[in-house]
Amino acid sequence: MPDPVISLEEVHELATRILLHAGASAEQARAVADTVTNAERDECKSHGLFRIPGYVKSILSGKVNGHAVPEVHDLAPAVVHVDAKLGFAPLALEVGADALEAKTRSQGIAALAITDCHHFAAVWPETERLASRGLVAFAFTGSNSFVAPAGGTKKLYGTNPMSFAWPREGHPPLVFDQASSASARGEIQLHQRDGHTLPEGWAIDPDGNPTTDPTAALAGAQLPFGGYKGAAIAMMVELLAGALIGDVFSFEVTERDNGDGGPPTGGEFILAIDPGATRRDGASAAMAHAETLFAEILSQDGTRLPSDRRFIARERTPIEGVSVVQVLYDELQTLLPAS
Amino acid sequence: MPDPVISLEEVHELATRILLHAGASAEQARAVADTVTNAERDECKSHGLFRIPGYVKSILSGKVNGHAVPEVHDLAPAVVHVDAKLGFAPLALEVGADALEAKTRSQGIAALAITDCHHFAAVWPETERLASRGLVAFAFTGSNSFVAPAGGTKKLYGTNPMSFAWPREGHPPLVFDQASSASARGEIQLHQRDGHTLPEGWAIDPDGNPTTDPTAALAGAQLPFGGYKGAAIAMMVELLAGALIGDVFSFEVTERDNGDGGPPTGGEFILAIDPGATRRDGASAAMAHAETLFAEILSQDGTRLPSDRRFIARERTPIEGVSVVQVLYDELQTLLPAS
Repeated sequence: MPDPVISLEEVHELATRILLHAGASAEQARAVADTVTNAERDECKSHGLFRIPGYVKSILSGKVNGHAVPEVHDLAPAVVHVDAKLGFAPLALEVGADALEAKTRSQGIAALAITDCHHFAAVWPETERLASRGLVAFAFTGSNSFVAPAGGTKKLYGTNPMSFAWPREGHPPLVFDQASSASARGEIQLHQRDGHTLPEGWAIDPDGNPTTDPTAALAGAQLPFGGYKGAAIAMMVELLAGALIGDVFSFEVTERDNGDGGPPTGGEFILAIDPGATRRDGASAAMAHAETLFAEILSQDGTRLPSDRRFIARERTPIEGVSVVQVLYDELQTLLPAS
Repeated sequence: MPDPVISLEEVHELATRILLHAGASAEQARAVADTVTNAERDECKSHGLFRIPGYVKSILSGKVNGHAVPEVHDLAPAVVHVDAKLGFAPLALEVGADALEAKTRSQGIAALAITDCHHFAAVWPETERLASRGLVAFAFTGSNSFVAPAGGTKKLYGTNPMSFAWPREGHPPLVFDQASSASARGEIQLHQRDGHTLPEGWAIDPDGNPTTDPTAALAGAQLPFGGYKGAAIAMMVELLAGALIGDVFSFEVTERDNGDGGPPTGGEFILAIDPGATRRDGASAAMAHAETLFAEILSQDGTRLPSDRRFIARERTPIEGVSVVQVLYDELQTLLPAS
């Protein structure tokens, strides 16, 4: 029997109803549902409805404050802080983006420090949102402790994604969003489930030796992408999303987490730059110049721009809907209020 | 016969005299000599006296303006532009650092766009300088076109270094400075000279096929570090040091360069953040928190912090001096004024 196919509107309604029933406020539920729906729209299944059970568990365990109202604090002319008050990240990101955009427009560059949030999605939505308003944007966040430092033998860093987005005229922004680890943790779990060995270079076992066994890898540590250079990026993300903004490092997240299977508690650091402020001939000149680079890239066979797969999916799913694997669909029904 | 050993003061004097004789102004010569001396001090030989012949050639060819006086322009409350006026980078970086620091202290975060400079050194000096003043710093710059984009078969990006520095109390800053390519171009040239094959993953030949032959690699393209993720970093650096600030992409540098063997003409983008502005409990709390991460890293056998090798060399070379390979020493003598 084929998996159920539902519309994006139904995705949003399903997510919202489940979160409200779990005890989230209308605003928290709506913001999370927006993020989940956007992931399904772009066929990023691992950050779509698949995450809803985890969001629910984290409310029920008391880790997440489902009624949190993010607070905005002005820290400096070009720095804004959003205290997420232990709520989910999407609402804090939404509030923070408006404050960050205003500061960036007036100062040329600005930073947003989000603390005490629960991030359970990709990082491209926050940079893409800013770039769709014409700003260049960066985002950095930690996770649980999973990745060994350069030369080390034990997990310490998170998978620590960073995202970068560049605005384009008449086209969705150029966006990349990549973990500092060689692979996503979920990919290792899928290899374990399917009885496959891992590619070399993904992980070490609990004794610090290279392994292709997914079970040993999950008990040991993941490796950064690209050796010591990826490890340096992972360390930078720890410093930005932790010490710089007054939130936890990934190893501290793991020490404190209640193991409910929901999102970790932590911070996120976001930067935005107004390309109209960084060159004397303005933003349109910057946009036009960037397009010549993108054309050079695409003139080579075999290339594509990051996120182009998402943008192709985005054309299709509003018309065709999205499929939800049956076992997930059934689980989601159990999280709805009894009718 | 052992190579000549000279003191750091002699390094500086030798570099200064040669640059003055080639036609540089006193300020341009002094700033380049500072950078070259700091590289020798830290035993970064590839950016020390080894670079002097290239600096000289670029003055003699007319590409570099040896008398350039960098101009500082205020672009926005948190953005400053330094027009290097086709001089060398070190003097522009020096002038720019002061302007950037002032803006960062008042705004919390600020950006420095340097255009029309000639950069022929590592990128850690600029971030380390800012971090030694208590600021978190990033730097990004392009180069000539050497590196293939993700999935591509021909050179397009530069080796595109990025540097990041974090201030430490009572210790030199934590600094990393890494190319977006799998290897430095010089490392491939050394393999060619010594008749060695390259490690896999460094390069492709002119037909786009993987190669371990250094000659084929130099004729073809280098590969980014860590596959498509390193390529994304390389692309980000192009956008920041090119389109964002109104300077050239690496492929444009190569199209325009006069082939004198000196530094390429291009731009650099630098960011600084005041860690006293990004968390409510101030910079000391940020510094102390970061030290707990560094302690965790170093608690694992086999780890070290980036740049620690440089800092060890820095203790030794002021006392012991630095050795200069005889062939380079002899070449430098020919660049001095006839006595």
